[in-house]
Parts: sequence; structure tokens; C-alpha cells
Amino acid sequence: MTKPFHPNLNIDALFLGPKSENAVFFREMMDYAVSEHIHWRSGFHPEDSALVTSVDRYEHNYRETLYQTEGILNQLSAKLKNTSIPFFSPRYLGHISSDTLMVSNLAYVMAMMYNPNNCSYESSPTTTELELESGLDLCRMFGYDPQQSWGHITSGGTVANYEGLWVARNVKTLPFAISQHPKAKDLLNHKSPQQLRNMSTAETLDLISELQQRGIFEEVRDMTCRGIGVKPEILGKLLVPQSKHYSWMKAADIFGIGQENIISLPVNENYQTDIVQMRKIVFDLIEKGESILAMIAVVGTTEVGAIDQIDKVIALRQECEELYGESFYIHVDAAYAGYACSMLLNEQGEFVEYDDLVNHHRTIGIMPEGISWPKPEVYQSFKALKEVDSITVDPHKVGFIQYAAGAICMKDKRILDLISSRAAYVFEEKNDNTNPSAINRGILGSSIMEGSKAGATAAALWAAHRLLPLNINGYGKIIAAGIVTAHRLLDKLANLAPIEVGMHRFEVHIMPFPDFHMINFTFKEVGNESLTRHNALNKRLYELCSYYTGRAYANDFLTSSTILDYKEYGDTPQHYAEKCGFSRSEWEKTRRIYVLRAAVMTSCLRNEEHFEEFWQKLQAIFVSKLNQLVDEEEKKVRRTTSIDKPFIAVRS
Amino acid sequence: MTKPFHPNLNIDALFLGPKSENAVFFREMMDYAVSEHIHWRSGFHPEDSALVTSVDRYEHNYRETLYQTEGILNQLSAKLKNTSIPFFSPRYLGHISSDTLMVSNLAYVMAMMYNPNNCSYESSPTTTELELESGLDLCRMFGYDPQQSWGHITSGGTVANYEGLWVARNVKTLPFAISQHPKAKDLLNHKSPQQLRNMSTAETLDLISELQQRGIFEEVRDMTCRGIGVKPEILGKLLVPQSKHYSWMKAADIFGIGQENIISLPVNENYQTDIVQMRKIVFDLIEKGESILAMIAVVGTTEVGAIDQIDKVIALRQECEELYGESFYIHVDAAYAGYACSMLLNEQGEFVEYDDLVNHHRTIGIMPEGISWPKPEVYQSFKALKEVDSITVDPHKVGFIQYAAGAICMKDKRILDLISSRAAYVFEEKNDNTNPSAINRGILGSSIMEGSKAGATAAALWAAHRLLPLNINGYGKIIAAGIVTAHRLLDKLANLAPIEVGMHRFEVHIMPFPDFHMINFTFKEVGNESLTRHNALNKRLYELCSYYTGRAYANDFLTSSTILDYKEYGDTPQHYAEKCGFSRSEWEKTRRIYVLRAAVMTSCLRNEEHFEEFWQKLQAIFVSKLNQLVDEEEKKVRRTTSIDKPFIAVRS
Repeated sequence: MTKPFHPNLNIDALFLGPKSENAVFFREMMDYAVSEHIHWRSGFHPEDSALVTSVDRYEHNYRETLYQTEGILNQLSAKLKNTSIPFFSPRYLGHISSDTLMVSNLAYVMAMMYNPNNCSYESSPTTTELELESGLDLCRMFGYDPQQSWGHITSGGTVANYEGLWVARNVKTLPFAISQHPKAKDLLNHKSPQQLRNMSTAETLDLISELQQRGIFEEVRDMTCRGIGVKPEILGKLLVPQSKHYSWMKAADIFGIGQENIISLPVNENYQTDIVQMRKIVFDLIEKGESILAMIAVVGTTEVGAIDQIDKVIALRQECEELYGESFYIHVDAAYAGYACSMLLNEQGEFVEYDDLVNHHRTIGIMPEGISWPKPEVYQSFKALKEVDSITVDPHKVGFIQYAAGAICMKDKRILDLISSRAAYVFEEKNDNTNPSAINRGILGSSIMEGSKAGATAAALWAAHRLLPLNINGYGKIIAAGIVTAHRLLDKLANLAPIEVGMHRFEVHIMPFPDFHMINFTFKEVGNESLTRHNALNKRLYELCSYYTGRAYANDFLTSSTILDYKEYGDTPQHYAEKCGFSRSEWEKTRRIYVLRAAVMTSCLRNEEHFEEFWQKLQAIFVSKLNQLVDEEEKKVRRTTSIDKPFIAVRS
Repeated sequence: MTKPFHPNLNIDALFLGPKSENAVFFREMMDYAVSEHIHWRSGFHPEDSALVTSVDRYEHNYRETLYQTEGILNQLSAKLKNTSIPFFSPRYLGHISSDTLMVSNLAYVMAMMYNPNNCSYESSPTTTELELESGLDLCRMFGYDPQQSWGHITSGGTVANYEGLWVARNVKTLPFAISQHPKAKDLLNHKSPQQLRNMSTAETLDLISELQQRGIFEEVRDMTCRGIGVKPEILGKLLVPQSKHYSWMKAADIFGIGQENIISLPVNENYQTDIVQMRKIVFDLIEKGESILAMIAVVGTTEVGAIDQIDKVIALRQECEELYGESFYIHVDAAYAGYACSMLLNEQGEFVEYDDLVNHHRTIGIMPEGISWPKPEVYQSFKALKEVDSITVDPHKVGFIQYAAGAICMKDKRILDLISSRAAYVFEEKNDNTNPSAINRGILGSSIMEGSKAGATAAALWAAHRLLPLNINGYGKIIAAGIVTAHRLLDKLANLAPIEVGMHRFEVHIMPFPDFHMINFTFKEVGNESLTRHNALNKRLYELCSYYTGRAYANDFLTSSTILDYKEYGDTPQHYAEKCGFSRSEWEKTRRIYVLRAAVMTSCLRNEEHFEEFWQKLQAIFVSKLNQLVDEEEKKVRRTTSIDKPFIAVRS
């Protein structure tokens, strides 16, 4: 394959655009996709006579059926136009959603018409290749050795997390199985029971080839939890940041581990996992002779975008290995921020040294004067990803692909041997034998959690990766645009003068500088000392800025929200509550703070002039929303029947 | 909503067609979908000035980026055209794949551009509704009460099976949790330990509201396997037909049950689960005081299309309940044949009495004289589906939807309480409170296995169900077309005179009459007594009729294959081996038979004349493939260096 030529990408030419600026091109390409497929069909065995003739097509019920089809599509379009969310617009700053790449939308449509199923190669010769290629693109971005690693597409980040936990769990029980097999136990004679509980992944995987040579691998594998079922006491504890995404609660349930075997790792005041406490917990477990099933770290929490210090997690593991000869599996959930790794790679795909990075970003024009990203510790985090065992990353988040497309990368593909299976009816011996790796190309479905899956998703991802290389000059560019906009917006919000609405004044408080492009903020009525009222106010503001209070399309600004509460973050949110001016006792009464949450992914506002124009509008919108809110509350007071207390100050 | 008008559907107007006969309509509707979206964007806040101006679009790198996009799409199209499989053609009779509905392709594209994420209602107000509506369509088809049941879309049948097992497993451990909670154990005082092991699903779910009233439901739930992890010995055995689809092996691994806790249920000579042996196994387990985690039955095996006798499974459960006061969970994997239930329902969605069915099919013209479907026992199976606890059904199989779209239906939605969870950042209190059911509409992701998911899939399914109601007059029509064609083809194959190729003669042997539209057959060289050689011959024939020996597009006929072996079917395939003329000792030597496998889904050949034309061609293709094979083998003999033995008879 010839190396594709990568032009100096123009970001605006990548998306359909907020005003459908690229409508002509998009239509033309859509037409091309359809035409190519239509002619592929009609060119297949031209000697076959048409089974549907033009006479058939004049039948009354033929036309009736087409009209009915059209009618249903009209109805669908009406529904979509009525209640969809305008993610494409810079006026939408909420969930991790934005405009998606034209190339991936078009590639999806193109491939969908051929309807490949990536479960088996036989049903998807083209798109299975594209899936494996795209998976390796992601592995390379994270610094994994493409010869040793593998990556593939999942239906989403949740399933990718499941798969990470699945391999972690199964590899964990292999040493126990070995130690119980008469023809294998000699392999681990030198290990103490405690070391057996916490063997490193690499060391465990190294034993597979020996088991295969002895001809007992399958027997031993049947003695792992895969064969005999889970014993939670052997698996030990799953360490998950306290901010744990609910997919981990589901995972502990599904994999038979039990939610009570999750240990929450407290977060520090930046919402990152607190490394000092993590260290203490790990050491305590090891000293108690407990197993550590896996350590989960997060690169980009979905609530505040916090990025855990992966290098520190790696260092901790190394320390355990050196001090105790014990280790643990590390899975990183980088569903949100994973693609941002591309901002640190030069065109050769190599990590740029930190000191050169700011200049590099400046030179190629993706970061203006005064803004830089990432902080040194975030840089170190990304750079350490190559050491972790597996990584979840979502193309449908910061990969700018339409839903649904998650992905997982695994450092050492030998780990697949512990989960793989096969079905006779999709089984092709020959194809298997020619395949040197642990991945069964013939039947992808036998090496992954899912079965049948859309090859079209692979086409979408492959096309996006070809257009936007996973480096500073490709994805880096669009991701930088969001980061720059987030920085500008944070700066404006931090310096916004109080907004006056009648007798009320409202200040904006932002949360500490984020690790990525997620902004959390609240409006506070000056003088209000009640956190409960503050929460109610921001909840109502969210409602006014969402689908909740009417058609999203008619709204001026749309955002999302979240609740930072004690259960998930301990007292960490208190720092922010204090910053907003609430006393410790207020926090202790409520222990939750409702915040507005904006993932800034839009690339439309990277130009300073455009941003200023947007900001002028946004200020006016804030004023108008606050006015609406004050009106509502004042009406509430006048309505003596109202049972709801107003949450703004009112004249007595 | 007004009830849609359902015309007398013309099947040919539903698909793009093997010669792209509906190209004009498809293009027009695609253009409509794109136009509607484009104008939706440009109509959003028309007062906003364009952020990308026509001057910007004249930039050199702007055009360069568009060219690059176009180039990648060219490359993708070339790849797709080169190696895709022509599923749309009647010349493809292999995997459970065929042409897909225009309306679902178009609906997908239409919705994809809005990029809804059905994980949370907030990101998909339109398509979440469509998903729930489509799920209920499926529930209704199976005879579930739409007030009590629920259904939703999964990424495929594998995940749907997982979800069925997930709820089965969790509900199974609730009685144990109750019996151990001081404030709840009185509820089950009257049960013997053995009865506790095998409580019925309904009886268990009835306890939830009592636990909720006592305010201890969540505490008790934390004591189920969800909270404390799996104890395989409490869960007991998972009963799976011997033909077990590999997704069940994966499931037993993933859910911590252990593959050794699967009990294989032997199949009868029709490849259905043998009810007599099933009864014996169940009774033995109960008498030994064992738990039965769940009974899996299959409606349409992926290898031969066998349909288990669900009514008999239900009767067995009833017997257990009456005799022992014990019960078990039943999940039906109807991924393949589930949609065929629509063939048994009249336009009001009611089951047509069996005796009226043949006439009804005849009258509306979907079944010609001499062909009828289903057999009485298959009819009884479908009719009994309403009694089972959950059902997997794949819209991307016989729903004629493009990949990826699976679905699961659950009889009693209260079961969701045992798996549900929630994430703060997608949490909306108000929305929850107004929702009377156990389903959290606000966050679908908290009641299902997956998280983020494409709303576009829901649009595709919804549109298909609106165009083709799930009855005799909608889906029934296209499914009947495949069944009719399968019957005709079986008849032809059964009566085909031996094909002579030089000195060789080859006969076709079909497998016993199938339950659905899957045909399995082999070619046998007359005089060959070796099953091994027979297998090699059919394997090579498959290769000649697949992507394996070159570009699928250039092939005349494409099919798939499978291996029926002892491990999966016991000695059942021996019946077929005998029918082909192989001795018992030949079977015992090999214990596997390689068969060609054709799911007949095409609707293009329902017309007898078209079928006859196709059959003439197919016969010629068989002759030509056999000639090619004989040539290859004779060359093998002449090449003295060849290490492969020929698998046809050769002159000595």
C-alpha cells in the first residue's frame, strides 16, 4: 500500500458544518457512495435477467409500497427534526458529542449497503481487515508494539471495559490452575502462595507456550475461572477510582466478581485518583495476602475530564514487583481522552519531548500564544500508557465518529488465548493455520465479547484514521481546537462580572482548571448561603438549557449537568463549594453539588474572532436565562398555593 | 398517533433489488434524508453568521482536504467492490444474510446524521422512544403482555443472550439473599432449602415489592451475586442444547458460571433438543437437590435451523412446579427464527389457529399449493414463546435489517430491578419519577448491558416495523418467500439425477426436512465409501463456492458450510451419514460430517418461473464446479510430488 499523502488539513473541510457549509460536497459523495453500490449490484452477472421488470414496477401495490416507505421516512424525519439535539452547533456544549466527520459518515453509508458482518471473515473480507488495521492504529498511538498488541472495535466503551476486565480476570486465575495441574505445577514451584496471587501479566502469559508444548494448555485453561466459574476470594479486589463510571459497577456484577469486591480509590482535589492513598491501599492488600484483580485508572473522567497519573500507577506497580515480587493488571479507561494522545505525537508517530511540545503546537498553529496543553503531569500520563495492559478508547467520543464505536487495545495479544472460543459453523481450518497470531482472523467473534457486528463501523473508523493520522497533524488538530476553545471559555467565565437581574446578582464559578476539555461551572446568587438553593438554581438553569423545557432546536444554548456528591468523590467537591462561598457546614448538610457540565469539542470557535462573537451571544443568553428563572421564581412567591420554595432571594 | 395504513405490500418494492431495480427511488430517498438534515442544520439559528465562508472554502488546503476525503472514499469503495460478498443476489445462499430493507438503510442514514445516543434520553429524545416502541413490537409478536414486558435493541444476538443469562443469574440468587437477611427471611420460611434453589421467576419477582415496602430491597440486592460475587455451587447448572452456539460458552465464562457448569442437552435426530432426555436430566438434578440456573432452548439453530419444542419445555417446567414445587428460568435463543413468529399472526396480531393457517397463507398468496409451513410441532413452539422468561431475536437476521441489530425481550420487566444501576452524570430525578415502570427511560444505559449505542439502529428497526407489521401481511410475506424457495430447492435437490463428470458420478444428499429455511446438503461421489474423502470433497466444493478461491463477485454461486460433529451432536449426524451411504464404522472413524449450508432468505425466487430459471443455472453451476474439482484432483494424481491424496476415485 502506498503511504497516503497527508495535506495540511483544513478542519472546516472535515465536517458538514454548523450551517451545512459542505452540503454540496457531502451530497456529491453520498451520491457517489450510492452510485458505486448500485452499479456493483447491476454489474454482478449481467447475463441474469432482471427479476423485477418495469412492468412489475407499474403494479398498483408496487407504487403503494414505495409511497408507504416514503411516508414512514417522512414521519421519521419529522420526529428527528422535532426532538433531536443540535450537537453540530457551537451552541451545544454539553455531553461528549459534537459534529462528526463527513468521511466517517460517508464511509459508514458506503459500507452499510454491502452489509458486511465482522464476526467472521467469510462475511466481511474487506471490513475485517479495516477493523484490524484501525485497531493497530490505536495501539500505535498509545505506544504499543504493533507486532505484540492488538486492538478492535466494540459497540462502545462499556463493552471495551468489560473486555478488559474479562481478560484481566481470566489471566488472574491461570497461575492457580497451573499450580493445581499435576503436569504443570512444577512451573510455579518457586512462587509463594502470595506471589501466586499477584503474578504479573507478562510472566503469566509467558507460561502459555510452555503449557502448549506440554500439550496441556487447554486442560489447564479449563481449570481457570473460565472452566470452573468464579471464586471471588481468589480473584481478590478490583480497584476502581471513587468516581467510578457506572460501567464498572455493571462489570463487577456481570463478571461474577461482586460489587462488594470493588475497592474505591479516593480522588485528590483535582478529581484524579489520589496516588498516595492508592499506594497505601495496594500495600495494605499485599501485606494482608490479598489478591488484586486489577487496577482501573481513568484518562478523562466523564464528569470533570480528570486524567489519572498513569506514570505513577506504573511506578507503583514496579515498586510492588521489586519489593514483593507481586504485580497487578492495569486497565485504563481512556474512553473520553484517549484520542488526545495524538496531540503528543509527531508525524512519525513518535512522542515529542515535553519541552518541544509547546513550540511544536505553536509552530504548526494549533495552539495560539498564551494557551498550552497538556500540563506536564498529563503528558507523563499519556506517555506511560504504553506500559498498561489494556486501554479503552471511544472513537465515538473524541474520535469524532458517529455512534456506535468503542475500541479496546491490548498490550499483549497472547492474552486472547484465555478467552477465545470458536463456533464450528464459522470455522475454517485453513484460514486459522495460516494465521500466526493469537487472533483468529477467520472468526473475530471467537476472540471478542460480541458476535455479529457491523463492518460498516470499521469502514468509518478506518476512513477517519486515513484522513486524520493519529498525530499532531491529524486528530491533534481538531482536538486542539476544542481545547483552545475550552481555555478561552474558562478564561471568560472566570472573569465575568456579576450578572444583574432586577434585585438579584449572579456570579459564575468555574471548577479548577481541567485536565482536558470538560468545563464545569455554576451560577451563584450573590448573598445566597444555602447550597441546597444553589443546587436547585443550577438544576433549573440546566433545564432551561436543555431539551427539558421544550424543543432543543428552539433553544439558544444547550449544555449538560452532573452532580458531584460525597458518595462518589468524598469531600473533594467541598473545595469547589468553598470556592463558591459555601461554608463547611453547608457542604456537610447537603454533600452534593449540582454543576453545569460542558465538553468543549466544537472546532468552529478556534478562531478568536468567532469565539468573541460567540461569547457576546452567550453572555446575552445567560442574562436571558437568568431573567426567565427569576421570573418563574417570583411567580412562585406570588402563587400562594405553590408548595415549592423559591430558590432565589425574595422580598419578605 | 394515527394507525398507519398498511397496503398490500409488494415484496419487490422493499429492497434495492438484485439489479438495483429500485435505484431511482433509493437515490431519491437518500437525497431526501440528506436534504432534510442539511436544512435542519442551516435552519438552526439563522441569525448566526456562517463560521465557514465561501472565501474560506477557496483556501488551497480546504480543497486539498476535500480531495483527500474523496480519495479515501474512492479507496474504500474499491476495496468494498473488490472483496465484498453479494448477499443481495439469489446466487448467494449461505449465511443468514440477504438483501436488506431499503427503509431500514434509509432510516439509519437519516438518523445517523443527527447522531443520537440511546444510552441516555437526553442525547436521544427521538430514538429512545423508537427503541422502546420497536422493543414492544417484538414483545407483542411473541405474545408477551406489552404492559408487563419490555424489549430493547442490543448490538447483536450474542449480547442479547448475555443479557438473558444476566437477569436469570441475578434473579436466581435473590431467594438466597432474602433467606439470609434478618428482616426478610420470614418471607421464605415456608420453602425447603431445595425449593429455595429452584424458585420460579414470577414468584421471586413478586417478592421485590414486599422488600421495597420494607425498605430493604437495595440491601437484599447487595446480597445477591451482584453484590457478593458468584458462587457457582449456588447457581447450579446451565442447561444448553448440545448444539450450543459458542455464545453460550462465552457466556458461561463471562458470567463467572464456569463452562463446566453447562450441561449439554442431547439432540434428537431432527437436531432439536431431545425432550425425553431433557426431562430425565432435569428430574435427576432436582432429585439430587441441585439448582438449575436456566434452561436455554433454541428457535432456529444457526447450523441446521432446528426449532426446539418450546411447548414441551414449558410443560416440563409446569410438571416440575406441580410435582416438586420447583421451577427454572427459560431463555429462548430465537436469534435466527424469531421473526418467523409473524407468519402465524393475523393482522390483529392474534395467533391464527393451526387448522386455518394453511388456508390463510394460501388465500393471501404467500404459500402456493403444495407448500406449507410450519409443521404442527413448530407452530406449537412459537405459540408457547409467550410463556418463556426471555427471548433473543436478531433484527439483522430475519428482520432484514442491516448489521448490527440484535434484540432481547423479557416477559416481566420487574426483573430489571436486579441488574439496574445508574450514573450520576446522566441522572435526571424528575424524569425518573414520572416513569412508572422499572425501565429507566431517562438512562436506558442503566437498565441494559451496553452503554452508548446508536439511536440510528432504533430508527432503522422502527421504520422496518412500521412498513412491515409483524404479522402475516408484513414480515410474514418476505419470510414466506424464503421458505417457499427453500422448499422448492429441497425438492429439486432431492430429485436431482446424478451428475456425471468424466468417469465420476456425483449425487446430492439433503438433510432431513428442516424446521425453517436452512438447507444442508452434500455431494457424494457414487462408489465412495470413505467419509473422510466425502468430507474433503465437500470442503473443496465449499471453497469453490465462496470467497475462498477468488473474488466472490466473479463467482457464479456462493454458499457456506459447517461441520456436524460428535462433540456437538453426538451420533445424530450418523443418520445423515447413513442416508448418504456411509457405514456405521465409517462414522465412528471420523465422527464428523462436512456439509454445505444455505440459509434461503432471498425473496427474488418466490415466483415459480424465476425459480425454474435459477434452478437451470444452478444445475449448470454444480456441473462446472464438479468439473473443476475433478480436474484439480486428477492433476494432483499426475503430480507425483503432491502430498495430498485425491479425494475422488482415480484410475489405478
